[in-house]
Amino acid sequence: MNVRLTLEYDGTRYRGWQLQPEGPTIQGVLEDALTVLLKEPVRVHGSGRTDAGVHALGQVANFSCPDDRDLWRLRGSLNALTPDDITIKAVEEAAPSFDARRDARRRVYEYRLWNHPWRSVFHDRYAWHVSRPLDPDAMRAALPALEGEHDFSSFRAAGCGAATPVRRIYRNELFRWEDHWVYRVEATGYLRHMVRNIVGTLVQIGLEERDAGDLPELIESRARTLAGPTAPARGLFLTEVCYDERRGPPCVAARV
Amino acid sequence: MNVRLTLEYDGTRYRGWQLQPEGPTIQGVLEDALTVLLKEPVRVHGSGRTDAGVHALGQVANFSCPDDRDLWRLRGSLNALTPDDITIKAVEEAAPSFDARRDARRRVYEYRLWNHPWRSVFHDRYAWHVSRPLDPDAMRAALPALEGEHDFSSFRAAGCGAATPVRRIYRNELFRWEDHWVYRVEATGYLRHMVRNIVGTLVQIGLEERDAGDLPELIESRARTLAGPTAPARGLFLTEVCYDERRGPPCVAARV
Repeated sequence: MNVRLTLEYDGTRYRGWQLQPEGPTIQGVLEDALTVLLKEPVRVHGSGRTDAGVHALGQVANFSCPDDRDLWRLRGSLNALTPDDITIKAVEEAAPSFDARRDARRRVYEYRLWNHPWRSVFHDRYAWHVSRPLDPDAMRAALPALEGEHDFSSFRAAGCGAATPVRRIYRNELFRWEDHWVYRVEATGYLRHMVRNIVGTLVQIGLEERDAGDLPELIESRARTLAGPTAPARGLFLTEVCYDERRGPPCVAARV
Repeated sequence: MNVRLTLEYDGTRYRGWQLQPEGPTIQGVLEDALTVLLKEPVRVHGSGRTDAGVHALGQVANFSCPDDRDLWRLRGSLNALTPDDITIKAVEEAAPSFDARRDARRRVYEYRLWNHPWRSVFHDRYAWHVSRPLDPDAMRAALPALEGEHDFSSFRAAGCGAATPVRRIYRNELFRWEDHWVYRVEATGYLRHMVRNIVGTLVQIGLEERDAGDLPELIESRARTLAGPTAPARGLFLTEVCYDERRGPPCVAARV
């Protein structure tokens, strides 16, 4: 039986999704728990990697379960065997061919900013604290240039293993609720640190250190050195992974 | 110079506000930092105690500063010397007679509930997870009976050192935003565990284990054993302490 998992995690103390020789990873914790429960080695396939310190509200993964079993009970056992900073939200039977990575059509990320003169103990783990006031209009003016298919090399971190730097951003938006800001982006996929590098650049624009109108040229330059700094991992959330309806529930717009 | 502090803290790893022989307390951390900065022993007077694990968004305290100094810089130094789970939001000169505890007229607490079938890794530290659906109308129907001056012995924990069990609740409300619930209460002061015991009782009402109409009788009984369980500390926030305008800025309604 091919099983699909939907999970939420606080990435603070993990070295990201993918198995690493050192330090805990989300994939490692899940595989260890499933190996105990299923009494044989289990490989879990994620929709994509999340970096060290990045959180998830709706990461999706799949694994092959050697027997038919009650998936509701499996969810309970899996939650009992994994640490408190990981929650398995759903465990469902998937089509035999379902592959969480290959079949993903869109991935939605949100990046949270706390724009306030003082840091807040309650937002520290989950947002980038920007103490100087941001200009929302300038930041929003920059967003349309990012949409569509582009070579995103300007926002690609060194060491990115992707075969091509071209990605399609379907939509990107900036929401604000008092001092909380959320940048939301929906794309086919992302280069390494792409969202965090975009946010670093948008924050420069919001602080009037850079002009929104320069963004097309910056993209065109394909020069990482010309873009802004990498925003810290702690503000980034993988909120949703969307699949074809044939292969799973339809994409539902994430609530902000 | 009499100095007034306004602070925010994540109470998770503290044994409450008040100095204890064992384990860290907010008061202890502040006094240690101020003693280093002012080079003499400092006593900090809080507006009231918060229990172990309880958070604050607007705790107020005062201390006597032996010399005149730049309070903006003192705020910076104090934030640098205290752990990341405490933020000193304001450091202001107060009237010589200002006493954070004695002069407090109203104290506002909020209690957060996460009402969802699954626990959430992001709300665990700051909300009580109630997995069965709560009935908001039943809970709201119980609120008017709590307002006004009452003997709140039914909601008073053992070991409460208050001279009288009579307190006045000016206002109490229940807000809901999707699966987040906030119970907000504004009173002169509180008995030990009073807010958490009220919330434990309201949740019983929301789960239809108790009738909202029984609340006047429950208050009348003055029997702690008849009320609900004590809600966990992690959902409770001291959001605001209000003073006479003469002695400080006026009470501003807290945002929920």
